Amino acid sequence: QRRPKKDAAHEMNLECTLEELYRGTTRRMKISRKRLDATGQQRQETEILEINIRPGWKAGTKITFQEKGDENPGRIAADIVFVLQEKPHPVFKRDGNDLIYTHRLSLADALCGAVIQLQTLDGRPLQIPMNEVVSPQVEKVVAGEGMPITKHPGQNGNLRIRFEVLFPRQLNDQQKMALRQVLPTH
Amino acid sequence: QRRPKKDAAHEMNLECTLEELYRGTTRRMKISRKRLDATGQQRQETEILEINIRPGWKAGTKITFQEKGDENPGRIAADIVFVLQEKPHPVFKRDGNDLIYTHRLSLADALCGAVIQLQTLDGRPLQIPMNEVVSPQVEKVVAGEGMPITKHPGQNGNLRIRFEVLFPRQLNDQQKMALRQVLPTH
Repeated sequence: QRRPKKDAAHEMNLECTLEELYRGTTRRMKISRKRLDATGQQRQETEILEINIRPGWKAGTKITFQEKGDENPGRIAADIVFVLQEKPHPVFKRDGNDLIYTHRLSLADALCGAVIQLQTLDGRPLQIPMNEVVSPQVEKVVAGEGMPITKHPGQNGNLRIRFEVLFPRQLNDQQKMALRQVLPTH
Repeated sequence: QRRPKKDAAHEMNLECTLEELYRGTTRRMKISRKRLDATGQQRQETEILEINIRPGWKAGTKITFQEKGDENPGRIAADIVFVLQEKPHPVFKRDGNDLIYTHRLSLADALCGAVIQLQTLDGRPLQIPMNEVVSPQVEKVVAGEGMPITKHPGQNGNLRIRFEVLFPRQLNDQQKMALRQVLPTH
């Protein structure tokens, strides 16, 4: 006697925000499937699948529910597979366990100092004073303010701050003369 | 009677500088091959293959010399194929028909104006005055100073100048105060 065949897995996307992936969350997915009753009749049923999203999970993570597809006589029901997707975030970009934040600041602030203020993905205010000169090539690394590392609970990646320095659109001759006097010549 | 089989083509790299590809050039490649004489004996011979490199040719261009491989009895000699490679250039990067040049300049020059001086691939001096404020996001396009376009003799792509603005490493409090007064606040 041959073993019954299993239907091919159904893959579905599961979109999460960076906030959800930072804190972890539980998602309940309602599915509708055909089930066989004791008499062999197919009946449509709904079911709730609960997914525990752990802090730090990455896009592409697959969560499999065994044999939760339609039940058909003589066959094994398919698996339902959720594939985690990461929604684009307006402030942070993720790079593995790191978060990247691009801070726009005026040239005056870049040269003379500024305090970067931002909110972490779990809602804490973060203040980062910049005392050194900020050039467009600088990347400021704030250790431990990146995404949680799933395999090492309590550990986080880094927050990497990049800078977009906004130059004045134009300067008059007087301003140019003053700047030539103040700025060092390389 | 079956047709004689042809040996598989021999591919060889042909490295050219951007200068050679800009002006066009002739390259003579010496090859050594076995030839059959009238009695059917194989003899080693050398031969010069001449390649006319046209202005604007791109990496990947193939130049084929038919049946210039070894002659073997009962077979058709292989083709010799040269595949054009582009040597990295210390000043210019090629992007299709365009040339990209990254100009490093001090913050003072970026804000107050500078003249960019460079030499084209055919040795002409080029002077490009920058009167507007140069921010790191700016790309200055000089029309017609890119690579020749092979299919349209006399036409060239553009030269695209990017800027790396060198910020002062540190500033004292007096300099910072002066800069705050001169620079506009966004």
